[in-house]
This record gives sequence, structure tokens and C-alpha cells, in this order.
Amino acid sequence: MFVRKLSGLNSATKELNFSSRRFAAFASAVRRTPLIIHEPEYPLIKTPIPGPISKKLKSELDKIQNATGVCYFVDPEKCAGNYVVDADGNAILDAYMMVASLPLGYNHPDLIETCKQPHSLSIAVSRPALGFYPTIDYVGHLNNALLSVAPKGHRQVQTMMCGATANENALKVAMIMYQTRKRGGRSPTDAELKAAILNQPPGCPNLSVLSFENAFHGRMFACLSASRSKAIHKVDLPAFDWPMAPFPRYEDPVDSNSEKNRAEDDRCLAEVERLIKKWAEKDKPVAAIIVEPIQAEGGDNYGSAEFFRKLQTLVKKHGCAFIVDEVQTGCGATGRMWAHEEWNLERPPDMVTFSKKMLLGGFYYTDEYRIKEPYRIFNTWMGDPIKLALLETVIKTIRRDDLLGLNRESGKVLLGGLKDLERKFPNAISNSRGKGTFVAFDVNSADKRKHILDELLKKGIQLGYCGERTVRFRPALIFQPTHAKLCLEKIEDVLQEMIF
Amino acid sequence: MFVRKLSGLNSATKELNFSSRRFAAFASAVRRTPLIIHEPEYPLIKTPIPGPISKKLKSELDKIQNATGVCYFVDPEKCAGNYVVDADGNAILDAYMMVASLPLGYNHPDLIETCKQPHSLSIAVSRPALGFYPTIDYVGHLNNALLSVAPKGHRQVQTMMCGATANENALKVAMIMYQTRKRGGRSPTDAELKAAILNQPPGCPNLSVLSFENAFHGRMFACLSASRSKAIHKVDLPAFDWPMAPFPRYEDPVDSNSEKNRAEDDRCLAEVERLIKKWAEKDKPVAAIIVEPIQAEGGDNYGSAEFFRKLQTLVKKHGCAFIVDEVQTGCGATGRMWAHEEWNLERPPDMVTFSKKMLLGGFYYTDEYRIKEPYRIFNTWMGDPIKLALLETVIKTIRRDDLLGLNRESGKVLLGGLKDLERKFPNAISNSRGKGTFVAFDVNSADKRKHILDELLKKGIQLGYCGERTVRFRPALIFQPTHAKLCLEKIEDVLQEMIF
Repeated sequence: MFVRKLSGLNSATKELNFSSRRFAAFASAVRRTPLIIHEPEYPLIKTPIPGPISKKLKSELDKIQNATGVCYFVDPEKCAGNYVVDADGNAILDAYMMVASLPLGYNHPDLIETCKQPHSLSIAVSRPALGFYPTIDYVGHLNNALLSVAPKGHRQVQTMMCGATANENALKVAMIMYQTRKRGGRSPTDAELKAAILNQPPGCPNLSVLSFENAFHGRMFACLSASRSKAIHKVDLPAFDWPMAPFPRYEDPVDSNSEKNRAEDDRCLAEVERLIKKWAEKDKPVAAIIVEPIQAEGGDNYGSAEFFRKLQTLVKKHGCAFIVDEVQTGCGATGRMWAHEEWNLERPPDMVTFSKKMLLGGFYYTDEYRIKEPYRIFNTWMGDPIKLALLETVIKTIRRDDLLGLNRESGKVLLGGLKDLERKFPNAISNSRGKGTFVAFDVNSADKRKHILDELLKKGIQLGYCGERTVRFRPALIFQPTHAKLCLEKIEDVLQEMIF
Repeated sequence: MFVRKLSGLNSATKELNFSSRRFAAFASAVRRTPLIIHEPEYPLIKTPIPGPISKKLKSELDKIQNATGVCYFVDPEKCAGNYVVDADGNAILDAYMMVASLPLGYNHPDLIETCKQPHSLSIAVSRPALGFYPTIDYVGHLNNALLSVAPKGHRQVQTMMCGATANENALKVAMIMYQTRKRGGRSPTDAELKAAILNQPPGCPNLSVLSFENAFHGRMFACLSASRSKAIHKVDLPAFDWPMAPFPRYEDPVDSNSEKNRAEDDRCLAEVERLIKKWAEKDKPVAAIIVEPIQAEGGDNYGSAEFFRKLQTLVKKHGCAFIVDEVQTGCGATGRMWAHEEWNLERPPDMVTFSKKMLLGGFYYTDEYRIKEPYRIFNTWMGDPIKLALLETVIKTIRRDDLLGLNRESGKVLLGGLKDLERKFPNAISNSRGKGTFVAFDVNSADKRKHILDELLKKGIQLGYCGERTVRFRPALIFQPTHAKLCLEKIEDVLQEMIF
């Protein structure tokens, strides 16, 4: 079914039938040709986007729910690899990938193959309640998928459905363990249990969570209390009185401003400590600090490895849990399996949460954060085993095809190219930054950003935005240097046509 | 692949190859024979449960996460219809169905067929972000699956991942609309937006949600603040200061105690009103009331239709949203598509939430509760289209095979049989109650209940528990009178062996 065009590699054999396994061996050698068979070579734009079919579907959808946010409708079977195909037949090079959530792009043959297996079909249509009646393959999948790529120092993992439920449950674990330690390891008292039903202390203590300015941790009520990126996410909804600390804002170039930037780290850390103390005085002790390695939704903001190392030390000094939210940065997005690997922490984060490219939500936790009573971190489904089966294939494919290496390689092309464009269009774009293909640049205004993204879409390139005037790349792990170059060309075309 | 044994129907043709479509026509005529082909005729128990393989897997799982709650491991491909098969080859008649979450039992051929389709495989492995880039079939699935069974008066629906996220988002809608009405329909002010980032009023107002004693609405932080069934779910976690009203407790038999029970309704309603006023005085106005038609987790507690009608009137008088949580009662569980249909409300509930048998979470809402600004009820995935595709098949199958009729029929057998057993064992069990197969009975002590459930499992019957000493049936919609009779026989056997 899948046929890979090896144009330019072997002129005699333009089309070859390749199993993805046999193909794998070629992966690193042929990275300039598409990694995914049947992927289009170039974008093909037939209509304005959204086209007439998408527009019609959108107006139908709008009768059922507010569809204002819909860009276009996707024709799933026609998509392949890095290319999304919309309802009107436009083939778009997708470097945004469903908000960073497709690890291997569209219709990856290995994932299709996994999904077709009788066992997969069974768990897909007869989803078990994993807390009571897990499937016989559950332990294997946890080991082969999740634990085989566990952050250093982590041997415990809990699956959930999505990023928000992963983060909410990680916060629950932090709070339960905070109170358990306070009780000297004992289970809750009768007085606590009685008060809990009434939502009152001591059963429901006024614990708090410290998060950072511009952070995003999801939209359920607790993680929303920790999210600070956009007011429209939060307004009109009750929130917990939790502290918000500043996140470092460095002066560029980072190398020649190291002293200033170290001072910025220290300023932020001092503020973290002040807030921890202040909330303790308010009798709302900070049970956990949650932080993204790169603030994504908030504008692709970076902290230094040193900042995070010092943050962990500080957090542990005050007895709070240190939770790293890798929902967007995890699963190889930055060229490493986990972005926080780069920090060289002395000890592992207490919890690392994930979702998006991992296909299902969840969190790793240290042995210290294992709750002894059952049914406390619990619900009906506790994740979804079909996603776990698919994740196992994702992980195998990442290894087999060295997709982390590819990600770093493509990221280098992307970032280098953007730096060139910055020099060419100094009034238009700035501050190109990235790790792997987790790359972003700023535009000089929000309006211009919108214009750039709209124009790029007309030329068949899908990118995303974040923060106030940032454009972000969030491609799949099969994004190759050729794709990066194509994006750069089109960006250059757009910038050339614009007046800044 | 699927072969149905028509024993007793046609002695000459013991085994026939039936497509499920052809088979459907026979469904109502042959309800005494298995509706699902290849389903075992009886439980087959080979080992203690958990058996040696389940025990081994459990100890392996316990290295990765607290596995105390695990009963046994499931061998998914071997399960069929109403029968779950565990890792040790025990075939168990499952009247609990993954905590009420499998609508058509295990490996239903129509669901397998749906899942095998190329289109299904595509959306399963390339999950779209439905808020930005929905699939071309999304509107169709919403119409064919969700809107075709919408509660009366509902034309708007939003999908989510699970019951907890459905309820949290319904609460968000209620609160956003409460504040919007307060502003005379205008969008949030700048002052509100600024305060929201800081988790402070007026951006984050102190709105509250009224729920009922013994209610269960999920385990994220907001729905957990509304859940009141078990302290262990809530303890050690911060909660919102929200009011809890009593839920009616009727005197049996209901028919001859109508005056007393009406007084009980009035007592609870008066308390609801008192709490709404009290929380308004505390400046934490009640934006929503959330209630289950039958409190499931809390012990299968019923309110009268009159109670709910009066409750709605009261709630609307005070300008709060009236949210009916049909996560467990929905999708035909009570012999009607939605349990609240029975109340004959004058106007629809403002929102109806669902999950479990519906395969994905979500909520219906009235036009009045449609939020005009985009991105306020939003996240990356906004549900999962493969579940929606499967749900469409579930709905078609329910219609084609008249599974609601079957549910009422099987429920009658079950409830009638339990009433007989009550008379036979008056010191052991009591208070049998139910609608459709949503049936439960009480045991005279929690210890005895545990013993009954354990003994039933040894005889190959899986039931569940809820409340303090209640046993609940929560079978699939393919549960037939024959299955009900088998359960009753085994319960009688167990009660006969016990000393009360």
C-alpha cells in the first residue's frame, strides 16, 4: 500500500515497495528524500483556505457548537506524513501537527499496522477500567512504551486521558504526599475524613501550587489556577488563591549577557522563595511547584539549566514537590526524549507529566511520591490502552529510525535558516530560538504575525502561534531538513512581499 | 468469524454463519439465545480469582504503580458479549462491564467492523485537534451519533475526553454564562481580564456549585468539590467552599408512604433554597446545581420525578444553571436513552453531561448556554473522533436491535427475581430497586456484601458495589433475561450457603 518515491537516489527504480521495517535501515542515509511513503513532495493549494467545502462544514458545525476557532476540515485518509490534506483537497505541509500532538505525522504505516491487529481492535472497542481490570498486555506496554523512555530516576508511572488530567492528578499526588508527610506517614484521621466531605479543613487543607507568569498547564479548575498565559482561559471562573512567580526574561545574545542573565535568574528565584514564605504565612503552604521546561503556549520562553537546577534545590528546601510539565516539550520534541534532561539535575524531578505526542496523558513519579492507600489516584478508565499500544510503536519507531537525531538535524537547519532571515529582514522578525525542531521566532507585531501565518497557509505551510507575537514550529518527529528548507523558502517569500 | 449458536431454535442447524446485520432481524425473536455470537453459554471457572497469571501480573504491575485495586487481568481477545475472560482463562458473566462503561459488551462485531475501516484507522492514528482542524466526518458523527439521541430541547453538544472533563467544562459554561448575564451579555471587561491572570476577583469570581449529599461527579478539583460520596476521594486536597444539600431518602414501600416522601422532597428542596440564599449572602453565589438522576457511586439513591421537577423550578428561580449528570445513567442504562426523560420536565435541563457507555465525555447544552466568544471551552483534543465513530455504531445498534426494549425486559426479570429473593432471605438482602437493568440491592452489612461479591465471582458472576452496603448491576445493553436469570440463580446459591 505504501510506496516510497526514491527520486534522485536511484533513477532506475523510481518506485519501490518497501516494508517500513526494511525501509528503516535506509532512514539515516536517505533523509533528504521523504521518510514517509506517499507523502507529497510539495504543498498543493487548489482553493483559498478554508475552501468552499470547509466553509460549508464549518457553517454546519456552527449550528451545533461555537465553531469560530475552526481553520479547515481535514480529510484524514488523504493525509500522509508531514502533509495534512483538507476537505477541499489542499495538501499543506504541517509544521504544527494538531498543536504538537502527532509524533509520527499522519497515517504512519507502523501505527496503522498496530491499530489493525486483532488485539488492538479488541482493546479499542472493549476499553477496560485499568484500575480494576487491566488487560494482560498492560504491564508489557507500560514497560515497553512508558518505562523504556522514563526520565532518569523514574520507575513509577500512571496513565491518564489527557494533559489536563495528567497535571491535575500530579497536583493531587503532591498534595496527598505533603499532608501524609505532615502526619508522619500515617493515613488520614477520622476528623480529616469527616471534614473532607464538607470541603473544609483539616480534611481539605488550603494547600497551594506555585506556577510562573505566562505558564500554561491546562484548563481544568486546578491546572487553570496554575495557568497564567491568557486571561480569556481563566476569566469568569473561580480560582484558588495560588502564587505566581516571574519566569526569567533574558537579554540577547545570551552568551555576552551571562552576568545580567544570571542576575535575572536570581531575581526570579528570590521571588519564588519570597512567595513560598508569604503563602506559608497566609497558612496556604505551597505543596508543589509546576513548571514547563519551555513555556510553550506562553510564547516559547526559555529558562537556563542553571535556573532550573537552583529552582529544584530551592523547592526541595521548602518541602514542596517539583513537577515538570512536559506535555508539549516531551516525547522528543526538543531533540531529546525529555527537555529537562538538559538541566543535569542532581536528582530527578518529583514528577514529570506528559501528553500530546505521547498520545495519552500521564505522569512519572519518584518512589517517594508513591501513595500507599489505593483508590486515591483513580477513576473509571485511568488512560486508554489502545493509545498505549500505539505509543509502544511510536517509541520503537523513534529508536529504529533515530528520529531524535533527525529532529536535531532538522532543527539545526530551521534555526540556522531563521537566523539568516533575521539578518535579511531585521525589522520584521527577531529572536529565533529553539531546541531540536521546537523552534520559534517573534514578529514585530501581532497583526504582522497574523498576516505572515495567513500568507504561509496560502502557500501551503501550516505553522502555529503562541504568546503575543511569536510564531512556533511544532512539527512531527518525521520532519526532515527538506521540510525545514521548504518552510524557510516560503517564509522568505512572504517576508519579501511584506512592508515592515 | 462470528458464529452464533441457535440451540433450541433450530435443532437441525446448530451453527449458522450470520452477519450481524442479518442477525439483527432475529434479535427480538430469539432473545432467550445469546445476542452475541460466540458468547459462552455459562461461566467457566478454572482457578481461584485472581488466578496465578493474574497474581503474577499484579505483582509486576505493583512495581510500577499502586496496584492494590486490581481484581484480575483481562484477556481482551477472548472476551465476547457479556462474558469477560481473565488471564487465567476464567469466563465470567460480567454484569458490571468496566464500571458501567461498555455499552455493547466485549468485542461486539459491529464495533470491530467499524474500527477496521480505513477511515477509522486513519483517525485513530492521526487524532485531530477538533477545535481547530476537525475531520470531514465530524459534523456527520455529531449529528448521527450525539444529536440523534439528544435529550429533548437540546441541539448543541460539545465532546470531551471523559466524565470528569465533561463535568468540569459544563461547570465552566454555567459560570461563564452566569457572569455574562450579570454583565448584560457583554464580554469580560479589561479589569476582569487583568484580575483573572492573578486568580483574583472580579476576573475570578467566587461562584459556587451546589451538589447533593452522596453525589459523585468525578475527581478533578472542581467536580471533586461537588462530589460527596467518599471522603477518601477528597481528603488532603484543597476544595472550593461550595454548599451540599440533602438528597431525598424515602420510606419504603414508596406507594404507601407518598405523603411522608413528599414531605421528604420538600425538606430537601427547602434546604436547597436555604443554601442558595446563604451562599448568596456569603457573596459566593450558586452559579449551578449539578445532580445525578440516580446517585450511583453514592449507593443507587433515587429521587422522585416530582422532586426533580420542583428542583428545576427552584433552581431557575434563583438564576442558577441546572446540570444533570448522566455519566452513569445515560446511554440507555435505565431502559431510556436518558434517565431524566422520566421526569417530564417543563423545559430541558440547561446541560446534560455524559461519558462511560457513550465512549467519550461531553455535554449537551441549550441555546441559552452557548458562549459567544471562541476558545473559552477549548483544549487540544476536544474529544476523540474514533470514539465518536464507534459511538455512531453503538447508537445504530441500540436502535436496530431495540436494546432499550431489551434492557427494560431484562431489568424486569432482574428486579422481579431480586424481590423474590428478598422474600426468601428477609434477613440478608433488602431494598431491591432499579430502572431497566440499572438495578441494585442492599446487604445487611458491608462485610456480608463483600462476602456475597467474592462468592459470586467464584461462581463466575461479576457485580459491583456502591454506597455503604449496596450491590449494583451495571451490565451492557446486550444483557438478556437469560443472563439475568443466571445471576439470580447464583445469588440464590450464595445466599443459601450463608448464615445471616
